[in-house]
Amino acid sequence: MAATCDQHLFVIFGATGDLTRRKLIPSLYRIVTENHVADRMAIIAVAPREMTDGEFREVAKTSLHDAGIDGADAADWCDRIFYQSVGRDESFDGLRERIEAVEADLGFPGNRAFYLALPPVAFPGTIDRLGEARLNRSPGWTRLVIEKPFGHDLASAHELNEQVHEHFDEDQIYRIDHYLGKETVQNLLTFRFANPIFETSWNRDRLEAVEITVAEDLGVGSRAGYYESAGVLRDMVQNHLTQLMTLVAMEAPPGFNATSIRNEKVQVLESITRIDPEHVVYGQYTAGEVAGEPVVGYHDEDGVAPDSRTPTFVGVKVAIDSWRWQGVPFYLRTGKRLPRRTSQIAVTFKPAPVCIFHGEHDECPIKPNVVVLTLQPDEGFQLRFEVKTPGSPPNVTTKHFTFDYNAEFETIPLAYQTLLFDVITGDQTLFVRGDEVEESWRLWQPILDLEDHPVHPYAAGTWGPAVTNPELAFWTDEWTMRT
Amino acid sequence: MAATCDQHLFVIFGATGDLTRRKLIPSLYRIVTENHVADRMAIIAVAPREMTDGEFREVAKTSLHDAGIDGADAADWCDRIFYQSVGRDESFDGLRERIEAVEADLGFPGNRAFYLALPPVAFPGTIDRLGEARLNRSPGWTRLVIEKPFGHDLASAHELNEQVHEHFDEDQIYRIDHYLGKETVQNLLTFRFANPIFETSWNRDRLEAVEITVAEDLGVGSRAGYYESAGVLRDMVQNHLTQLMTLVAMEAPPGFNATSIRNEKVQVLESITRIDPEHVVYGQYTAGEVAGEPVVGYHDEDGVAPDSRTPTFVGVKVAIDSWRWQGVPFYLRTGKRLPRRTSQIAVTFKPAPVCIFHGEHDECPIKPNVVVLTLQPDEGFQLRFEVKTPGSPPNVTTKHFTFDYNAEFETIPLAYQTLLFDVITGDQTLFVRGDEVEESWRLWQPILDLEDHPVHPYAAGTWGPAVTNPELAFWTDEWTMRT
Repeated sequence: MAATCDQHLFVIFGATGDLTRRKLIPSLYRIVTENHVADRMAIIAVAPREMTDGEFREVAKTSLHDAGIDGADAADWCDRIFYQSVGRDESFDGLRERIEAVEADLGFPGNRAFYLALPPVAFPGTIDRLGEARLNRSPGWTRLVIEKPFGHDLASAHELNEQVHEHFDEDQIYRIDHYLGKETVQNLLTFRFANPIFETSWNRDRLEAVEITVAEDLGVGSRAGYYESAGVLRDMVQNHLTQLMTLVAMEAPPGFNATSIRNEKVQVLESITRIDPEHVVYGQYTAGEVAGEPVVGYHDEDGVAPDSRTPTFVGVKVAIDSWRWQGVPFYLRTGKRLPRRTSQIAVTFKPAPVCIFHGEHDECPIKPNVVVLTLQPDEGFQLRFEVKTPGSPPNVTTKHFTFDYNAEFETIPLAYQTLLFDVITGDQTLFVRGDEVEESWRLWQPILDLEDHPVHPYAAGTWGPAVTNPELAFWTDEWTMRT
Repeated sequence: MAATCDQHLFVIFGATGDLTRRKLIPSLYRIVTENHVADRMAIIAVAPREMTDGEFREVAKTSLHDAGIDGADAADWCDRIFYQSVGRDESFDGLRERIEAVEADLGFPGNRAFYLALPPVAFPGTIDRLGEARLNRSPGWTRLVIEKPFGHDLASAHELNEQVHEHFDEDQIYRIDHYLGKETVQNLLTFRFANPIFETSWNRDRLEAVEITVAEDLGVGSRAGYYESAGVLRDMVQNHLTQLMTLVAMEAPPGFNATSIRNEKVQVLESITRIDPEHVVYGQYTAGEVAGEPVVGYHDEDGVAPDSRTPTFVGVKVAIDSWRWQGVPFYLRTGKRLPRRTSQIAVTFKPAPVCIFHGEHDECPIKPNVVVLTLQPDEGFQLRFEVKTPGSPPNVTTKHFTFDYNAEFETIPLAYQTLLFDVITGDQTLFVRGDEVEESWRLWQPILDLEDHPVHPYAAGTWGPAVTNPELAFWTDEWTMRT
């Protein structure tokens, strides 16, 4: 794998921030050690604060230590990190000079990855300054990594795309959705396209419904400032759940490469004519109990307006109008303060068309087959099936095949490790393309625009508000079963 | 369940034999205790030897003891066993009088099951004498249970059917193939018809091949006298493997009842135009090693002629000419002195039509999905599938879902227990119908008639002879993998 990794500089904007400390530094260290490419990478950490290389290397060592990484190798590696202070509105000319100096010093050919570990408000200015300092091009490759959120609505996402494209080509741009880096999410494509038993059933002839659930047990915590203006659709649905939906629903790509796969993902979004507002259920948590502990309602969280109508839960029924999926509902659901943390995709097969197993009772005892892919925690998947209950008469019992990632594989790379490795090896497959992000916003914008859409209260520690719309009855009756 | 069990006499012919002692007595005891019907059954044990009721009850107690059953309840139950000596050619008038006396004594209404636990040579005489003594009819129901083998070729099976039908109607006749009593074999129908994920794939569009294997590690042992005249086709294929094949291949029956299911099983046999002799590979074991112990070749077994050409192994490729199965080979294989004992059905799916996972290598790494149903030992089933290997690049790894009967269920009834319960409750589903047994012989008769069909040597402890016919290459290359 080392052969695919060129000598390069990894430039982090927002180097003194939380993301750099918790995710980027440890992930970069794991990448260079596991792939034996320590001598092919150097890091330039950029932030406004004044600091020496040595001081930042201590920050990096602490970051590694907190991730359980210590020792001489880690300390040596930190010597390949350089720090450059750049003021909030300062031009990047000084930065460019530093980059060129480090490259000259190391004999690096000018390959550069710029990682914007910044709040969204800082994206436009940073991108402009990169372009103005001609850091958008280099003697080697130049790649730009943009953290989410990419825009806060369709107009702002479009504007941001236009601005990025002023300086960078699409094949230079790596929009992060860290869900795509999860092994279990990547495995969706293997699960489907390496297993005919599943893929040949993956359509309207065989399937009854698809449910995509991202449940959080936490409340809004210290993020009320952001969350009050964002809400659950921007926070979780437009990005993570929509990404999962496209991976579950996409047609088979002609090849396993960024263009093929992202084309097919966009096709899914284009096949969704509109989200019916009648099929959107908002909720907001009230006081309750999670894991045996009493918790306050959303209105009583720090920083939340007492009359806030910000939804903390949403359930949506999505219709994909394609030959493959017409008539198969996709239920997306996510919320805060649900009974426990889990992300999963449940694919329910159509029931047996005829029931020949009535046993002692008149009612058909056969339950439909369900494939449940659990993305976190307890990564793995399950297949629910029916077996004969031993003895007479021939009744049936529901059992599960279970596959547990952690039991089957020794080490599973973390999402950021996977994504950063893809950045430095130039694989855009797991990043969101410009047209894709806009298509996703296009889908959700009419829902964001709804005024006075009802927000139903639900007690913290329950699976969301009760729903009276019979169109949505499927998941309100069934979904807790699968979690 | 007790309601479905009428008061009845269970009459065993061959009561002093091995089958009665090892299987019938313990199974009947388990049935009456587990279903709480001890007072609804009495047993009349019949054999030529002179013995009192009391003496036979001691035999029965020993039989229960050997099966791990002791105590006062078991001793009490033995008091409901009566013994009647009947000479080899004696009429059954005396037996009828005894039956009627016991029924009068117990107030039983005249329901009777006659179990022929006899060598095949004794079937015709016993059946005739039952008819002559008017024991083929009674005030209640009368059922006749016939042990295998049912005939030794098509002509003798037909003749035996004609003779039985002189005295008994088909709905009175229970032809035993104890494979059908195994829970895992019965579960084949649940596995298929309660699980759309499997049944919708169970056809020529989705499947590549079906392999049915019954491997024995034992040699011919003390059965050479029988085996020399029978050979592997009569011993295992015409009955057990053919039964398994019909259950795997049958169409969905309209209901779970004897008529529907047996109709469909016969339809499978009728869809097999002929067995191509070119697709039959015979083998005979030579000296070798099984489980680390040296064992002699078939020629050196006691009672085997030094120039015997009796096959102890057969592999056959069967074509089922139905809309469902045309083009999907069914490979049947069975043999003695194979590396270990296992009975299993392996269903291999067609490969992924396109390979998008080439990983580091140029060769497609995707293996086909396989469902393996293991009937004995280690009862259960497996689904082989592909998952993404954690990390980059996106390679695939083969893993298994495994379902273990013994881990999932507390008690699994033994085959004889199941079958005897079905006899006394009047369910013929798991018994071989008259037309079915003849259809099966019709299928194999041309192969039995082959003269000088090659018999290839194979070393004991190997998976059978090497095969050069490319038509049979599939299983010679692959089948040890699944065992």
